[in-house]
Amino acid sequence: MVKKRKIGLPPGTLVYTGNKTDIPISITYLEYDEQNYTAETYNKAQQLPIHQSNEAIVQWYDIRGLHDINLIQKVADSFGVHSLAMEDIVDIYKRPSYVEYKNGHFISIKSFEYNSQLNEVKPQTISLFFGKGFVLSFQEHEDDVFNILRDRIANSKGRIRQRGSDYLTYAIIDVIVDRYFHVIDKVEETLEQIENTINNDVDSINKGQLQATKVNLIKIRKSVVPLREVLNQFIRSESELIDPNTEQYLRDVYDHTIQVVESTDSLRDILGGLQDLYISEISLKMNKIMQVLTIVTAVFVPLSFLTGLYGMNFEVIPELKHPNGYFILLGAMIVITIGMFWWFRKKKWL
Amino acid sequence: MVKKRKIGLPPGTLVYTGNKTDIPISITYLEYDEQNYTAETYNKAQQLPIHQSNEAIVQWYDIRGLHDINLIQKVADSFGVHSLAMEDIVDIYKRPSYVEYKNGHFISIKSFEYNSQLNEVKPQTISLFFGKGFVLSFQEHEDDVFNILRDRIANSKGRIRQRGSDYLTYAIIDVIVDRYFHVIDKVEETLEQIENTINNDVDSINKGQLQATKVNLIKIRKSVVPLREVLNQFIRSESELIDPNTEQYLRDVYDHTIQVVESTDSLRDILGGLQDLYISEISLKMNKIMQVLTIVTAVFVPLSFLTGLYGMNFEVIPELKHPNGYFILLGAMIVITIGMFWWFRKKKWL
Amino acid sequence: MVKKRKIGLPPGTLVYTGNKTDIPISITYLEYDEQNYTAETYNKAQQLPIHQSNEAIVQWYDIRGLHDINLIQKVADSFGVHSLAMEDIVDIYKRPSYVEYKNGHFISIKSFEYNSQLNEVKPQTISLFFGKGFVLSFQEHEDDVFNILRDRIANSKGRIRQRGSDYLTYAIIDVIVDRYFHVIDKVEETLEQIENTINNDVDSINKGQLQATKVNLIKIRKSVVPLREVLNQFIRSESELIDPNTEQYLRDVYDHTIQVVESTDSLRDILGGLQDLYISEISLKMNKIMQVLTIVTAVFVPLSFLTGLYGMNFEVIPELKHPNGYFILLGAMIVITIGMFWWFRKKKWL
Amino acid sequence: MVKKRKIGLPPGTLVYTGNKTDIPISITYLEYDEQNYTAETYNKAQQLPIHQSNEAIVQWYDIRGLHDINLIQKVADSFGVHSLAMEDIVDIYKRPSYVEYKNGHFISIKSFEYNSQLNEVKPQTISLFFGKGFVLSFQEHEDDVFNILRDRIANSKGRIRQRGSDYLTYAIIDVIVDRYFHVIDKVEETLEQIENTINNDVDSINKGQLQATKVNLIKIRKSVVPLREVLNQFIRSESELIDPNTEQYLRDVYDHTIQVVESTDSLRDILGGLQDLYISEISLKMNKIMQVLTIVTAVFVPLSFLTGLYGMNFEVIPELKHPNGYFILLGAMIVITIGMFWWFRKKKWL
Amino acid sequence: MVKKRKIGLPPGTLVYTGNKTDIPISITYLEYDEQNYTAETYNKAQQLPIHQSNEAIVQWYDIRGLHDINLIQKVADSFGVHSLAMEDIVDIYKRPSYVEYKNGHFISIKSFEYNSQLNEVKPQTISLFFGKGFVLSFQEHEDDVFNILRDRIANSKGRIRQRGSDYLTYAIIDVIVDRYFHVIDKVEETLEQIENTINNDVDSINKGQLQATKVNLIKIRKSVVPLREVLNQFIRSESELIDPNTEQYLRDVYDHTIQVVESTDSLRDILGGLQDLYISEISLKMNKIMQVLTIVTAVFVPLSFLTGLYGMNFEVIPELKHPNGYFILLGAMIVITIGMFWWFRKKKWL
Repeated sequence: MVKKRKIGLPPGTLVYTGNKTDIPISITYLEYDEQNYTAETYNKAQQLPIHQSNEAIVQWYDIRGLHDINLIQKVADSFGVHSLAMEDIVDIYKRPSYVEYKNGHFISIKSFEYNSQLNEVKPQTISLFFGKGFVLSFQEHEDDVFNILRDRIANSKGRIRQRGSDYLTYAIIDVIVDRYFHVIDKVEETLEQIENTINNDVDSINKGQLQATKVNLIKIRKSVVPLREVLNQFIRSESELIDPNTEQYLRDVYDHTIQVVESTDSLRDILGGLQDLYISEISLKMNKIMQVLTIVTAVFVPLSFLTGLYGMNFEVIPELKHPNGYFILLGAMIVITIGMFWWFRKKKWL
Repeated sequence: MVKKRKIGLPPGTLVYTGNKTDIPISITYLEYDEQNYTAETYNKAQQLPIHQSNEAIVQWYDIRGLHDINLIQKVADSFGVHSLAMEDIVDIYKRPSYVEYKNGHFISIKSFEYNSQLNEVKPQTISLFFGKGFVLSFQEHEDDVFNILRDRIANSKGRIRQRGSDYLTYAIIDVIVDRYFHVIDKVEETLEQIENTINNDVDSINKGQLQATKVNLIKIRKSVVPLREVLNQFIRSESELIDPNTEQYLRDVYDHTIQVVESTDSLRDILGGLQDLYISEISLKMNKIMQVLTIVTAVFVPLSFLTGLYGMNFEVIPELKHPNGYFILLGAMIVITIGMFWWFRKKKWL
Repeated sequence: MVKKRKIGLPPGTLVYTGNKTDIPISITYLEYDEQNYTAETYNKAQQLPIHQSNEAIVQWYDIRGLHDINLIQKVADSFGVHSLAMEDIVDIYKRPSYVEYKNGHFISIKSFEYNSQLNEVKPQTISLFFGKGFVLSFQEHEDDVFNILRDRIANSKGRIRQRGSDYLTYAIIDVIVDRYFHVIDKVEETLEQIENTINNDVDSINKGQLQATKVNLIKIRKSVVPLREVLNQFIRSESELIDPNTEQYLRDVYDHTIQVVESTDSLRDILGGLQDLYISEISLKMNKIMQVLTIVTAVFVPLSFLTGLYGMNFEVIPELKHPNGYFILLGAMIVITIGMFWWFRKKKWL
Repeated sequence: MVKKRKIGLPPGTLVYTGNKTDIPISITYLEYDEQNYTAETYNKAQQLPIHQSNEAIVQWYDIRGLHDINLIQKVADSFGVHSLAMEDIVDIYKRPSYVEYKNGHFISIKSFEYNSQLNEVKPQTISLFFGKGFVLSFQEHEDDVFNILRDRIANSKGRIRQRGSDYLTYAIIDVIVDRYFHVIDKVEETLEQIENTINNDVDSINKGQLQATKVNLIKIRKSVVPLREVLNQFIRSESELIDPNTEQYLRDVYDHTIQVVESTDSLRDILGGLQDLYISEISLKMNKIMQVLTIVTAVFVPLSFLTGLYGMNFEVIPELKHPNGYFILLGAMIVITIGMFWWFRKKKWL
Repeated sequence: MVKKRKIGLPPGTLVYTGNKTDIPISITYLEYDEQNYTAETYNKAQQLPIHQSNEAIVQWYDIRGLHDINLIQKVADSFGVHSLAMEDIVDIYKRPSYVEYKNGHFISIKSFEYNSQLNEVKPQTISLFFGKGFVLSFQEHEDDVFNILRDRIANSKGRIRQRGSDYLTYAIIDVIVDRYFHVIDKVEETLEQIENTINNDVDSINKGQLQATKVNLIKIRKSVVPLREVLNQFIRSESELIDPNTEQYLRDVYDHTIQVVESTDSLRDILGGLQDLYISEISLKMNKIMQVLTIVTAVFVPLSFLTGLYGMNFEVIPELKHPNGYFILLGAMIVITIGMFWWFRKKKWL
């Protein structure tokens, strides 16, 4: 996979680093306070009206699809988003970060989609920019992960309608972090399956599955560890944009993030154990095969030597003349075989 | 195992993430000061009376079973427990944490049960909420781990009856941390057994036992490491709810927690050593098997070649006519065999 | 490779630790402010004029090739570069560092070139010294990595023409860090190739490729981890040489550096996984080979024993007289063979 | 080994966690100042007089054997030892710790005994409690590790007689830390032996010795790492009990402790290397065995096939009639054998 | 190797922990300021005059050989060296440390000698004690590592003659740290050789070389990591003995020390990679051997069975009568052989 990168371009240049898609961009606009609620949806960038900012209400522009740079520039410019933040919005490889600008706070964060068929975790970049009375969210996602949140706002569940843009930002992050647990659970299930397979039928192990799971955990960790720092900065921010009451909620989502990190680390350790188990299972199986080989060889090779001995054509081999020679030899062979098996059993090979 | 999770629900929504059970909830209510002691037990949520709070005495509501959300809501509401804390009480996957709310302090902690048949450590969530004159404890446990503590209070052993709710909270945590040592001891015994088995009869090793023990240690560590931080926050809390005299006791239980962490880490290192030992034992055994195979092959294959040589039907093979040919050949074979054994001994294969 | 080192020489002695080359040194001089722009190129050290320093404009001396110690001494002396900094400029093994001297700030940094044929990452030392109105850059590179930046200045793209020497220094570092991502991408591609090769045709693995990639990642990490510290010191510097507005840009490039470190660490973990995968693939293959060997041996050795038995020359072997003896034996052999295969299938070896 | 534990008992309850022994307790009492020196020894707890505390002199009660809880309670009570400290004195699993109580400072520390026959390091708990003019030491040890120190005091070597109880405490810790180096040296010797054995005669390796050494290092580390923290707290203590002049001596023993930690870590790394060496030695040996097996098989199996070919009883096999057939075949066999050896040598198997 | 240790001796007792040697001690005395320079050399301890200290000049006593405790006591006493420092001077196992005493600063440091024949890095303890106008250096070394430095002072190269004892101390440390790079380079060369040997002729690997190199890196790291801390304390020391101008030079040598640490860590990682490479090479080779064995066996065993079949002595074996039976069988054998090879090629074993 060749990544697109900007090199040498002036900082703040917008370069969409994902793959250009023909999928139309989807924009959802929400406007609410405790009494009123308005929702609008647009599929074309041109239609999007930039509403007058109003500190009494909360405005939320949710933009899905990052390839229409003009649209993003237009929205971002309307709210005075810093050019470095804009550059980060369209860079899908951006690591989670938190930056306070004069006009608002910028948060870059990763969401995850789990493709169970490929056993692949796919990170999706989500950028948030919030100021007094507005939140902008930019998603790489095609599917609508914030639907559930919009329903909550529409139905006025919880305290969200009474709070400002900082609480909405928290609520968005909370939804994303809750999704992490799903992905973690999926990885955990995969590990349980792998352990079962190793214990029951080590040969049917899908060769790349351990490595794929390892890569998934690395991806998750790479996104969640910086998120911890992001939330920490969010909590410690002394900006007047953030209501002191929101802090307790941020601490809660921070705690969830740490839980994700710890779970990831535990799963990694468990995965490491499974790899050792797998290697020792293979070794054990080889051991068993070697035992069979050795037993067959050790039993039959001496017997075959004896048959060869009496298959020789020397003119004088006295034993051959003995009328019971054949039967005596057969008896001797049985004794040898029994002796061998006794010895193998003593050696615990049988 | 599919976990239940809440996603997109407003923060503070109570969702019991464990398995619904039909086991009736058990509630124990204690009320004591230096002179008086009252204990009441209820099996039905409806019966539970909420006693008038009274700062002169200590009230302890101990609730076992987390699936009756209404009961928990009722109790928690009576004491002004914050909705985020309530959410954490019924979330059995909650990591240990310490949060100071206005009405009291919330502590989430893990207890362990060791199932020696499955060699499985099972964490159980215990939540504590204490304020001026009251302690609420919420346990996932069915068995009564705090019985011993209630006896102590009833019999007025120690200084517990003269102290407040902070000391009771400490005493509860102390009981739980003491139980950790039992689990650690169990794991240590398992490791000693595994070492014996590896040294004496490597083949009879139960395949998954090393991995199961590893997972147990990971689980313990995952619960105890955050507990260290929880106790640290408890000690450093400058809340007036906590009597300065309690601090020394908290430091003591903190020290025990560190001891558990260090023991867990040591056991992990020992386990790692056992895995190496196991792998090298298997390799050694394979080595021995290979030696036997090689010796048998190397001794008999040349001899068999000789018998084949004189079993050929060429019309002219002078040796066959020799009257002592057979005996000379037998002698030669003995010489070859002795030479082989001498060589193997020199190579230290015998 | 024997490295050149100075030992016992007084500190500040200039010793070029790279290989002397005959390639002529290339010097590019730039001078600009918002309106004016002048560029000059020299191929001989003697030609280089030292321009009058002027705080209103930015002067940039870019020197490629470090073996002409006299030239470097001359340039460095003109701008009052400290003798310890001069010593570092010509030491190609210098680790990235940041030192504030009285006359300006010294930054040592590594750039990378990726030789895809050898799968080798080659670090190149770049030293920067900037003061009021001037930047000196010293490169080991032969190819012109800053060309793209000069074009930007010439064409007045971005805000670079309105800013001072601190911003130019930032811009230079930004170009270098952007190049890191290319190298990281190359290593990532190599790992993807290796994974494919392991999964599809483990024997065709180039033996040293895993080790070479490991060494590459170690080299990158060794250069980027100290760079993180360098940028941190740059940001925290309270020197009046650095415009407060530049800080946000430095934070941005700092963030990119952390991203490089994290990517390197992830790739290292992935590489570790591939090594395990490789070892287990080899083991699995050996297992398959052993199975074939064991099956062939176990099937034919008993049969061969039977043929040997009836190839003996005893005078009395009753079976040999039986008219259908041969056919009965053939039948018995077929039965034995079928039994063997049935047993192997039961053991899942077939 | 089943450990004794207290669970649910009130904090401060004395439970001796070691094995009850019938060995009589041994108590040594010392009293000294710069001019005077008195030593008394008791073998029965009842005999022990509690001397009047006197700040002008130093009193040292050294108690060996921890199972007589009444004695310990009596001594500890006389000097106002806190109940939590008393509990720690009789808990042989107590990790090293430092606690400042009102009446004195409590230090728990580990000493080591090395049993060279079992290659086992055995930690012994030593507890110290010192206040103004007195030091109490409680040892699990049967043998007298402090004898050397008492001699020094008696003979007035060094500055010990001129100093107070803080210096005596330092001197006791110094003796214990000096003993660590002996144990470290023993482990180092064991590792040198193991390395020699691996290099010279890998088969004679005692199977469990690597693991036993690993466990020893883990035990040492587990005791010494917290000791580092203990000494750090001792040094930083601002208690008036500690003479500022003692600090330099404490720093010296602190430095020794760090040296022990670093040596332990180095030995662990070296041990890890030996394990790798051991595994690769076993693999190499298996390789050699496989080569012999392969050579024998590859040389004789084709030859045996030829003898079988001409041992067949077809009526028409023209070669058998040839008068020199046998000798031509022998010649061909020699040619084949030489060819094989040439090929093996080319493959570097011989 | 049995180490000498002091146990129970009073702190400050001088015990030389190295091996007593008969080599005469060598003492060099230097005295210089910007104009004057005097050098004297003594081979007998008795001859050494203790010069009047004079703050205007710098006096440097360089003592090689640590076994003459009287000499060291005499020198040390003359300059008021603390007894704990004296003890450290003669302890060759002392880890690098920095201690400020009243009369001067004590620095313990390690130098390295590389014995390329044994592939062994040998640490040598060097102790420095400097005060106003004097530096004492105590070396275990027999060879004169400071010769180059004395030449520099004699020839007045660099700024050393204009500076005080702190700069001389820096210069001594700088010489030692520069020597580290040589040792690091040697280890790097060894690793390159090992890599070549593994890739070209894995069997000729010297068995203990990987382990020896690992031990070397452990030794270097063990000495350099504390040195980092030593220099850090030196830099941060606010003693008036240290000229503020010296700090920049100390920072430079500190930076070099970090570079040594980082190089050591990189080399360790590279070594780890080589060990993996070595193991996989051995496995691969075993794989190849197994393939040959399996091919030979699988090809010839069935053929030999056929020859055995027609070598039986049954009275009725119809095939034997067929006039072309022998040739038909030969044809069948050729077909079987070709089929086998085709199958092996398909399996990629050939």
